[in-house]
Amino acid sequence: MLIVMQSQVSEDKIQKVIEFIKQKGFDAHISRGADHTVIGCVGRKVIDKRDIELLDGVKEVIRITSPYKLVSRVFKPDDTIIEVNGIKFGGKNTGMIAGPCTVETYEQMDATAEKLSRCNVKILRGGAFKPRTSPYAFQGLGEEGLKILRDVADKYNMAVTSEVMEVNQIPMFLKYVDILQVGARNMQNFNLLKSLGETRKPVMLKRGLSATIEEWLMSAEYIMSGGNRQVILCERGIRTFEHITRNTLDLSAIPVVQKISHLPVIVDPSHATGLRDKVAPMSKAALAAGADGLIIEVHYNPETALCDGAQSLYPEEFAQLYNELKELSIVLKINFN
Amino acid sequence: MLIVMQSQVSEDKIQKVIEFIKQKGFDAHISRGADHTVIGCVGRKVIDKRDIELLDGVKEVIRITSPYKLVSRVFKPDDTIIEVNGIKFGGKNTGMIAGPCTVETYEQMDATAEKLSRCNVKILRGGAFKPRTSPYAFQGLGEEGLKILRDVADKYNMAVTSEVMEVNQIPMFLKYVDILQVGARNMQNFNLLKSLGETRKPVMLKRGLSATIEEWLMSAEYIMSGGNRQVILCERGIRTFEHITRNTLDLSAIPVVQKISHLPVIVDPSHATGLRDKVAPMSKAALAAGADGLIIEVHYNPETALCDGAQSLYPEEFAQLYNELKELSIVLKINFN
Amino acid sequence: MLIVMQSQVSEDKIQKVIEFIKQKGFDAHISRGADHTVIGCVGRKVIDKRDIELLDGVKEVIRITSPYKLVSRVFKPDDTIIEVNGIKFGGKNTGMIAGPCTVETYEQMDATAEKLSRCNVKILRGGAFKPRTSPYAFQGLGEEGLKILRDVADKYNMAVTSEVMEVNQIPMFLKYVDILQVGARNMQNFNLLKSLGETRKPVMLKRGLSATIEEWLMSAEYIMSGGNRQVILCERGIRTFEHITRNTLDLSAIPVVQKISHLPVIVDPSHATGLRDKVAPMSKAALAAGADGLIIEVHYNPETALCDGAQSLYPEEFAQLYNELKELSIVLKINFN
Amino acid sequence: MLIVMQSQVSEDKIQKVIEFIKQKGFDAHISRGADHTVIGCVGRKVIDKRDIELLDGVKEVIRITSPYKLVSRVFKPDDTIIEVNGIKFGGKNTGMIAGPCTVETYEQMDATAEKLSRCNVKILRGGAFKPRTSPYAFQGLGEEGLKILRDVADKYNMAVTSEVMEVNQIPMFLKYVDILQVGARNMQNFNLLKSLGETRKPVMLKRGLSATIEEWLMSAEYIMSGGNRQVILCERGIRTFEHITRNTLDLSAIPVVQKISHLPVIVDPSHATGLRDKVAPMSKAALAAGADGLIIEVHYNPETALCDGAQSLYPEEFAQLYNELKELSIVLKINFN
Repeated sequence: MLIVMQSQVSEDKIQKVIEFIKQKGFDAHISRGADHTVIGCVGRKVIDKRDIELLDGVKEVIRITSPYKLVSRVFKPDDTIIEVNGIKFGGKNTGMIAGPCTVETYEQMDATAEKLSRCNVKILRGGAFKPRTSPYAFQGLGEEGLKILRDVADKYNMAVTSEVMEVNQIPMFLKYVDILQVGARNMQNFNLLKSLGETRKPVMLKRGLSATIEEWLMSAEYIMSGGNRQVILCERGIRTFEHITRNTLDLSAIPVVQKISHLPVIVDPSHATGLRDKVAPMSKAALAAGADGLIIEVHYNPETALCDGAQSLYPEEFAQLYNELKELSIVLKINFN
Repeated sequence: MLIVMQSQVSEDKIQKVIEFIKQKGFDAHISRGADHTVIGCVGRKVIDKRDIELLDGVKEVIRITSPYKLVSRVFKPDDTIIEVNGIKFGGKNTGMIAGPCTVETYEQMDATAEKLSRCNVKILRGGAFKPRTSPYAFQGLGEEGLKILRDVADKYNMAVTSEVMEVNQIPMFLKYVDILQVGARNMQNFNLLKSLGETRKPVMLKRGLSATIEEWLMSAEYIMSGGNRQVILCERGIRTFEHITRNTLDLSAIPVVQKISHLPVIVDPSHATGLRDKVAPMSKAALAAGADGLIIEVHYNPETALCDGAQSLYPEEFAQLYNELKELSIVLKINFN
Repeated sequence: MLIVMQSQVSEDKIQKVIEFIKQKGFDAHISRGADHTVIGCVGRKVIDKRDIELLDGVKEVIRITSPYKLVSRVFKPDDTIIEVNGIKFGGKNTGMIAGPCTVETYEQMDATAEKLSRCNVKILRGGAFKPRTSPYAFQGLGEEGLKILRDVADKYNMAVTSEVMEVNQIPMFLKYVDILQVGARNMQNFNLLKSLGETRKPVMLKRGLSATIEEWLMSAEYIMSGGNRQVILCERGIRTFEHITRNTLDLSAIPVVQKISHLPVIVDPSHATGLRDKVAPMSKAALAAGADGLIIEVHYNPETALCDGAQSLYPEEFAQLYNELKELSIVLKINFN
Repeated sequence: MLIVMQSQVSEDKIQKVIEFIKQKGFDAHISRGADHTVIGCVGRKVIDKRDIELLDGVKEVIRITSPYKLVSRVFKPDDTIIEVNGIKFGGKNTGMIAGPCTVETYEQMDATAEKLSRCNVKILRGGAFKPRTSPYAFQGLGEEGLKILRDVADKYNMAVTSEVMEVNQIPMFLKYVDILQVGARNMQNFNLLKSLGETRKPVMLKRGLSATIEEWLMSAEYIMSGGNRQVILCERGIRTFEHITRNTLDLSAIPVVQKISHLPVIVDPSHATGLRDKVAPMSKAALAAGADGLIIEVHYNPETALCDGAQSLYPEEFAQLYNELKELSIVLKINFN
């Protein structure tokens, strides 16, 4: 941390600042510039910089060490590659996950998975516990939904991902799913993150509705600091003033995250746009921007979907998109799997 | 719900829409206008309006019933007044809550509470479980903190409020606190809200970082739909592009909420601004705007605070502010308690 | 416009609303539904819907006609293709514009244009009047800059685009430039838009920093309503909470605009990200999302650039990107020119 | 500016950075800390910090001098008090401005001004040139409107404020108005700001729709750097995700601006909320937060208003609010005039 003192500050005030930070467990390193005296504040402790900013004579306090450690490329320079059921995410590998928003019935899952397996999809998504804004909206089938998801996936040799909403649910999820999903609204549910850090299954962490990339990475840091190194970041659109799309897909987040962190970052164009006809162009754009994976909503019959049918692709649309992505991946020199 | 058809749409398409909504369990009521045919969609079911918007010939779908019920003034026209330890919130009563951000030690709580009790403060705040962006930051004293909070409050005849972060913690909190606080990051932790709905203690629900007022009220609806009618809403600033203040305090939310809902709405100027010298002007502004309560951070010695000292008032500052608010309340014809 | 009355409203209140809108020059068309009476308000006048919302017994007022006309696909179903110096924008044609942020010297423009012409770039960009946040920052060379831009472009058989900031400057710009650029900060400078509507040269309209797509299209409507049909929309990133990138590039705006409007929409990845190493991935993503053009900052020697060097590509980087885009365009079945 | 080098950077890279900034006209001052070498960059020139951040071995570049000069309290410690027609803004004086959104007819202005003059209002507002999102909406009466405004104001011994939209209009405005208003959409119309800097009449500068306080002050700096020292800042709400109110009134901006700058800052609760019944609570809150003035929309008959009637007070409502503000001002020890 650097503490920039006001110009022409008295020696007395400088000494008081030094005393203060030493008391807090830091070392001080003074440098007297032409305009400003700058005090370097060295140490491993965590301190609220506003506490120093309030001291007399202090102009500004600047944090210069990154708040994240384990998620950073400084800590681990090579790309983390996460492999689930033969599908790789990260390191020039772009993995595909597909399936309906919500598990409704065995028949619905079976009909959808059958179509997806023909496109070679190896990881099936489907929500069993649904975070809904209204307490009166359909909240999902619960454990029954997870069972259906698992049974259908097994039938087609697929792996499974589903959203976990609560610490208490983790043991149950571990029985059924291969990737534990954390929803946007729970990105800063720190107790949930800590508990997931104690598991050893991959966690897919969605970006919060108005979270910065730094906050998102700090949430990943929570999971990693518990010992779980398999975190997949998922960009799913952020809240902006634009209302035609449900959210605004921030594709720049892909190269930004890939520079700072070694973790794979995938894209959910279905939730981001909320509109079926925007899913194909945004999927291609995500691939071109270097996404390490895609998670796409597909329903065998979107018109009857209980949830988010408006953003679900028809199986034929998905098949066509899949082929277009495959073609694109060759020009982009990406292993699309 | 109103379904507005495109102009000069064919009868065939109109019939298909009607069929669709009937299948979903709604009644249809057609009205043929000069420009547009409008189909009224009547029923109690929940449906995603995008599903209808995707049908052929549909121009727009408009929801006309409010999503909230129990929190609405339509449901309960009179102000809900919540009383804790003799302090009233709501119905022209403005209650005061004060205390440090975090419980650090018995001595710190005792020294602070002693000062506050002299100002007649009857409800003490203090965090024992802290939601921190970084896993490496101080996470609070846990149950030990709740015990200290309770002991000190009892000594000064105060009630107690503290933030609960997880379903599992609720039984423990019920032993120690009088008002259960839900933090901004957990405003849409729906499992937590549901569980709090099953308790019978007042819940203070902070507005999410970028939540709309409608989303905030829907979260209150979760708590109320569980049977708990004692919800206090707390405006604590929303995220905007302005960075000099930590958040942007949305004081218009006070009259807006008071028109739509019967629930009391209080203001946290400390977290909203993040700056000690902005707490007094914003507290007065909140009172003038009609706030049903204030929750203010005070520390007996902010410079040594482990957390958010920069936004904590010195006891003398608080005493002065308290007097100024008292004076203001007389002109404003509010019962400030 | 539809006026939804409160449930169980008195006949008297309904009649008063009808009277009110008739007085304002509208026809009324009543439809009595099961829950709500709805009054259709038919006419060509413009009215502030809040004026009706304030009347007694009114629940909600809903606008059902789009505010834009000339920019809409309803008005003109076919893509508008704008051709400048043989380069086409729109209708599956993706045009390229490149050049430095700012015109600095003849030598700088010449050295840059020479490199670009080798990549077959036919439209040169360069700012002569710069909108700067600080009055103390370099404000551009003014008319001298436009002359240099024109001279250099003529030497390499290029067309020219540059930003016009003020009504008074238009006659001067018409002498030098082929595409008149409106900057993000002037997107709602309505006097400027109106005056540009009276010219007959293509106008490139950048999206405002926090403008919605509807507002952006309404600004294009201002230009078109003056008789100028050649408007190119330019997405250049919107302001969000993310600060690692300068702005957040909203690539979903491409398919959204293309569905509503017939106008071409191009992308400026340089200003959107503000970071040189993000320009290539975002350019490819824009192409994959269906952009009708790209405008990219290139400087023969970015390190010496007076403005925005940090987001300018080196000529070699641009050449490589150009080739990659060309390859991609083949798979995407786009005419990249 | 401080340039923080990466830890364990080579001496060679440090020297290259020093060379670079010297070439740009700065002096370098090196300080070698325990973790990081920091280079102080001293000089009066303007440089884009990203240009340095791209150099090899640089970790971060930090600007430590404020970008504003003339607007800053450092430059002028005492409050600027602006007096118009005996009404003072600034320095514990809160001035009142009132009137309709738009000048419609002589009769409308006369009827409204007559009511306002009874409340002792001395400055009349009214728009003659209206910035409208749609080219088809009423654009104001133009110069005819300014004449009416002036005539009516003269009749009641009032001063006048109205919005100027364009450089060309300034000479005309100088004939009629006492305070030149710059609208939110023109806050960064730098040519307009520069030209207003050359006049010697007070300018009221509204905050842009999503402008930060720093950007707003920089726009004031444009006006002041032209020699015009009479700038009144006007907070009128910023764009947020909340849609029940038109904008979100940022009252914290009052104490924030008053700390940084000597300029008076007033509040427009009518445009900020867009709702008549929110104007009174927000006006009182603004006064309590320390606003140096208020500008409130009043129409003798809001139901017939051509523009923004929904947010205009009835004369009786205004009279009552005026009295309540007067009472409040006594407790707040403010000169309300």
